Amino acid sequence: MWTPSTPFAPPGTRLELEEGAALTPKFNADGLVTVITVDHGSGEVLMLAHMNAEALARTFSTGNAWYFSRSRNALWRKGETSGNTQRVVEMRVDCDQDAILIRVEQKGPACHTNRRSCFYRVVEQGAEGPVLRMVLGGATR
Amino acid sequence: MWTPSTPFAPPGTRLELEEGAALTPKFNADGLVTVITVDHGSGEVLMLAHMNAEALARTFSTGNAWYFSRSRNALWRKGETSGNTQRVVEMRVDCDQDAILIRVEQKGPACHTNRRSCFYRVVEQGAEGPVLRMVLGGATR
Repeated sequence: MWTPSTPFAPPGTRLELEEGAALTPKFNADGLVTVITVDHGSGEVLMLAHMNAEALARTFSTGNAWYFSRSRNALWRKGETSGNTQRVVEMRVDCDQDAILIRVEQKGPACHTNRRSCFYRVVEQGAEGPVLRMVLGGATR
Repeated sequence: MWTPSTPFAPPGTRLELEEGAALTPKFNADGLVTVITVDHGSGEVLMLAHMNAEALARTFSTGNAWYFSRSRNALWRKGETSGNTQRVVEMRVDCDQDAILIRVEQKGPACHTNRRSCFYRVVEQGAEGPVLRMVLGGATR
């Protein structure tokens, strides 16, 4: 939700959104954009999270990943309690500017379960439907 | 939103969600999970989209990516009009089972703007704040 205090201009036309040079994120009704976080070294997808305008502005200006926790309803600097910080190497935006992709140097594990990535289980075909299998390296470290 | 017609069991305890072998997606209030789609060959993030229970079940059972379009409020098989289909090579789920990661063999460009990936612009520091720069290969093909 764009408000006058938002540090980004409101989204423009579809052409401006898709082809323009202005970052005008399309925040959802809760004021959030979705963020994909990728490990800069390996290219591995580490986690999926959300940013509000302030988290996005802080991430951009400080180079450290800030998110907005929907469960805690609070701004949150990644690693502020765990120490597992993320230094942002590159930030991208998608075609309609409602998703952000950041490449980070991840310190320690990214997942709160203490795994490198949150995507540590593969969905496979079991006898009675899908079953989850831990990937190699998916054990808690 | 889980309903009796959903082809997945409802989410269990946090321990079951994070460490269990059952796929019990946590659909949001709109009945959707977020999906990150990655190119199987290059590892590049191609797009971010959503699936409802039916799209997820169809993707799992057919091996072709199905999504749910929020703007069109409709189930959608990727490439059904463009021909740019996605053959799913691997599916993963994240720690709290509200996000899915699929690795696909992408036929043609993934983005509706005719680019390989939807993330074709880097956010950079300009004189007056963030500006978007097209990546190499980000021109429409």
